Amino acid sequence: MLAARPHGEPTPAHFRLEEARVPTPRAGEILLRTRWLSLDPYMRGRMSAAKSYAQPVVIGEPMVGGTVSEVVQSNNPDFAVGELVSAYAGWQDYAISDGRGLHRLPPGLPPTTALGILGMPGMTAYTGLLTIGRPKAGETVVVAAAAGPVGSLVGQIARLKGARAVGIAGGPDKCRYLTETLGFDAALDHRAEDFADALAAACPKGIDVYFENVGGAVFEAVLPLLNDFARVPVCGLVSGYNATELPPGPDRLPTLMRTVLTKRLHLQGFIVWDFADQQEAFVRDVGGWLAEGKVRHREDIVEGLEAAPEAFIGMLRGKNFGKLVVHVA
Amino acid sequence: MLAARPHGEPTPAHFRLEEARVPTPRAGEILLRTRWLSLDPYMRGRMSAAKSYAQPVVIGEPMVGGTVSEVVQSNNPDFAVGELVSAYAGWQDYAISDGRGLHRLPPGLPPTTALGILGMPGMTAYTGLLTIGRPKAGETVVVAAAAGPVGSLVGQIARLKGARAVGIAGGPDKCRYLTETLGFDAALDHRAEDFADALAAACPKGIDVYFENVGGAVFEAVLPLLNDFARVPVCGLVSGYNATELPPGPDRLPTLMRTVLTKRLHLQGFIVWDFADQQEAFVRDVGGWLAEGKVRHREDIVEGLEAAPEAFIGMLRGKNFGKLVVHVA
Repeated sequence: MLAARPHGEPTPAHFRLEEARVPTPRAGEILLRTRWLSLDPYMRGRMSAAKSYAQPVVIGEPMVGGTVSEVVQSNNPDFAVGELVSAYAGWQDYAISDGRGLHRLPPGLPPTTALGILGMPGMTAYTGLLTIGRPKAGETVVVAAAAGPVGSLVGQIARLKGARAVGIAGGPDKCRYLTETLGFDAALDHRAEDFADALAAACPKGIDVYFENVGGAVFEAVLPLLNDFARVPVCGLVSGYNATELPPGPDRLPTLMRTVLTKRLHLQGFIVWDFADQQEAFVRDVGGWLAEGKVRHREDIVEGLEAAPEAFIGMLRGKNFGKLVVHVA
Repeated sequence: MLAARPHGEPTPAHFRLEEARVPTPRAGEILLRTRWLSLDPYMRGRMSAAKSYAQPVVIGEPMVGGTVSEVVQSNNPDFAVGELVSAYAGWQDYAISDGRGLHRLPPGLPPTTALGILGMPGMTAYTGLLTIGRPKAGETVVVAAAAGPVGSLVGQIARLKGARAVGIAGGPDKCRYLTETLGFDAALDHRAEDFADALAAACPKGIDVYFENVGGAVFEAVLPLLNDFARVPVCGLVSGYNATELPPGPDRLPTLMRTVLTKRLHLQGFIVWDFADQQEAFVRDVGGWLAEGKVRHREDIVEGLEAAPEAFIGMLRGKNFGKLVVHVA
């Protein structure tokens, strides 16, 4: 349960484990048992009462989240006991559903892919990059949090489209993974002293697409390197999610706007569900690439619902390596 | 001539009047006499050495600018003496041209319209609003500097597309002109104490398109009123063109980016020539609307090239009322 709204970085005290009787499905309903729970940065926003694109989680209620769940009781002819579905059951062991919004998992793939490369993070990368970023062959695409489930697919799709992929990640292991396993053209450690210079050196022809999911110092280093007509899909700003106040001045808002004007930048925020009509194309394309071995993914699985708060807090600090999933049952 | 680069607001001392012998056209060339000179905010950028989308004017060289010029000598069979052309002859009485980039004025229209509603400012309004802003019937479109040549057409085209047009201008005369003559749905004086509240009241359903040509305090008032999926064509930032330093903190860049994300805003900078392929559609549509009386325009004409510096300086303060044109000869 969300126990309290954090001011700044969440701590374990902002969460509370509660036990309750397993609910009983009524007519038309099914009982879902959570097998895997997805942990994603957007959840930090739901812990806050600040106005956003979705309602905040109510204090004392379960945290929200995507799950792979198993049908364990069914009063609904559309769902049979034993079936696995992707659901939005949240941080809990059991949930009741009337069947709306559930999707049966495609056969033959590990169930957790429905939370990562073939789920919300994968579709975020696919839609934001292709609809807003529109990389062309020979262009340079930069993405941060590049060892994560969104960034890693952004870079791989950029490569499939003939673009140069430059990934930014925290630490040498993740950077090596990007170039050696995923085929990124370059990888940079944002913790390095000379990060901004290294990024400039890695982008000798400037940056045509910057897939923004972190903000902060990375965006500062990217901004002067953006080419005329660069596209910036704004997907997330995780470096600022725990911020409690605005950074000190000067106010760089006018600088950003002047850059947008003189470089004719295209900045556009999006939420994956804005592109819900691309679901079929996404499953076809990314599912196909995955089956053909053209894209790879990595998962970081932690055991037990009790481990979720700490894993989530660590993710906001970049501790995970790959798609963070809680194996609940 | 540009005499010196201003630091902050230009003064008459940044310009210098020079006399020279009228040049003689060589084979293939024509001699143009400037009849009207357009004064536009972008010229402030050309006075500065800061990197932008165009080269700065060289100190000691004539200021650049669009003109309506008359062919007074011709060694080029494509141009006859006495013809009027739109040119880019700059702040001078005479100029030599090889004919490239010249356009004969369409017959039957006042020549100065080629510098305003049927010229660069009109095309800026048309392309930026329709290509990036894409107003839909029932939406709310806000534009500042709304009594100027770009803003006035933005609002009128918004109305023709069935949207609500809210104009922002300096002073009650311009505001009255917007609602009484141009048919804007509302007009607001940005100098009023309660400007931000008045803007909110004038946009009860929020803002779907904000055509950005001023920046600063107006953008600050607009930002919280933008609806989800609002479009912001960034055309100019005239309120900041004379700025010598960044405003004091806090740094609101992260606030802007968070707003772009959560509201899924589309911000896009543009220069009119990025949309050169729309020239024909622009002339057809706006020319047609002008002929049918569906759009109106207003000019603010000053006499004599000597008056250009003071008129230009005044324009950056919002002193002009309508398209600012210098009647040179």
